[in-house]
Amino acid sequence: MSELVIWTYDWVPEGPRGFVRDLRLRWACEEAELPYMVRTVAFDGRETNHLEYQPFGQIPFLSDGELQLFESGADLLHLARKTERLMPRDAAGEAQTMQWAIAALNSIEMVSVPWWFLKMSGDADNPLAGWMGKRLDQLENVLRERDWLVADRFTVADLLMADVLRVPAVRDFGDRPASEAYVQRMTNRPAFKKAHADQMAHFAAADAPA
Amino acid sequence: MSELVIWTYDWVPEGPRGFVRDLRLRWACEEAELPYMVRTVAFDGRETNHLEYQPFGQIPFLSDGELQLFESGADLLHLARKTERLMPRDAAGEAQTMQWAIAALNSIEMVSVPWWFLKMSGDADNPLAGWMGKRLDQLENVLRERDWLVADRFTVADLLMADVLRVPAVRDFGDRPASEAYVQRMTNRPAFKKAHADQMAHFAAADAPA
Repeated sequence: MSELVIWTYDWVPEGPRGFVRDLRLRWACEEAELPYMVRTVAFDGRETNHLEYQPFGQIPFLSDGELQLFESGADLLHLARKTERLMPRDAAGEAQTMQWAIAALNSIEMVSVPWWFLKMSGDADNPLAGWMGKRLDQLENVLRERDWLVADRFTVADLLMADVLRVPAVRDFGDRPASEAYVQRMTNRPAFKKAHADQMAHFAAADAPA
Repeated sequence: MSELVIWTYDWVPEGPRGFVRDLRLRWACEEAELPYMVRTVAFDGRETNHLEYQPFGQIPFLSDGELQLFESGADLLHLARKTERLMPRDAAGEAQTMQWAIAALNSIEMVSVPWWFLKMSGDADNPLAGWMGKRLDQLENVLRERDWLVADRFTVADLLMADVLRVPAVRDFGDRPASEAYVQRMTNRPAFKKAHADQMAHFAAADAPA
């Protein structure tokens, strides 16, 4: 197997630590016991210093041998195709994992991230609040009926959806017990805890004086 | 090959005609010459009348024999795996098509749709305008360097990105010649024109008195 490298920043401020999206890839590798390395690009100058690998100036991106892939959702689906631990091997199971992974990105996060952005901008009467509540209610209805999104087992679709939902402001936006229980189940997984602790340690180490 | 059915609404108001997302699936099938049928759910009661197929009450969704799949992005990638016409067959080409398809959904549309929503809500000082301009500029830099997103050929990643970019308000938001030329090239494709005309005819037929 070719060498997997997860690329992240060398440092970030305290606020986003524990939520930087390299965590999604660390978590997936930990679940699947895929060996990986972590390398960094500089946080300073991030908007232009790695555009050849990520044209929007973000992280993470993944190296898999010669292949470079950005977009955490695409990286997760790429990793998932390596191992049954992250996605069923049958065509229907693969298609449904892709469906729910993209639902996390394009039906939930497409609302939750701009909603959060407006909230952080101090907009008290958040114009995306109605849409946000509706989407979270629709998802709550799904999660009330099942423990996993696909095939009655853990997949990268759960990993991605849980990572979208675990943001504190999202968890605090209304009372949705099935969604909250889902987030707790997913973030209690040893692979999540390992990935989270490793990310925290990575950024804390960068704080140490040279 | 099992029977492909693209599900859409029986009717929509004039405003969204030509932009309803079943067009993405029609376009893909036309490009690949995949036979398909179009069936409908009622626009009236859409929030609850087809939740068993689309838990967010939206369209399109795709039937492929026994398999039902929602999320237009997932449907496109599912169709793309059937034929080299929509996606290269090699692992790197598949991964890069997935990467750019997800970039269309999660790096561009995640900004453009909420931006458009706020614009339609009459927010003159659109708080998402800065983020929107930045993302479109970053994409303009990419499209200035190449005609296609992946593998120097048409893929579903181009189909999806062009469908995100062709929204009139998005095209009118600043002057980005490479992006505009890209949208024009993609929407001049015979398969797009056929899909667009078919969608317009579908909804116009529903206007006819019973």
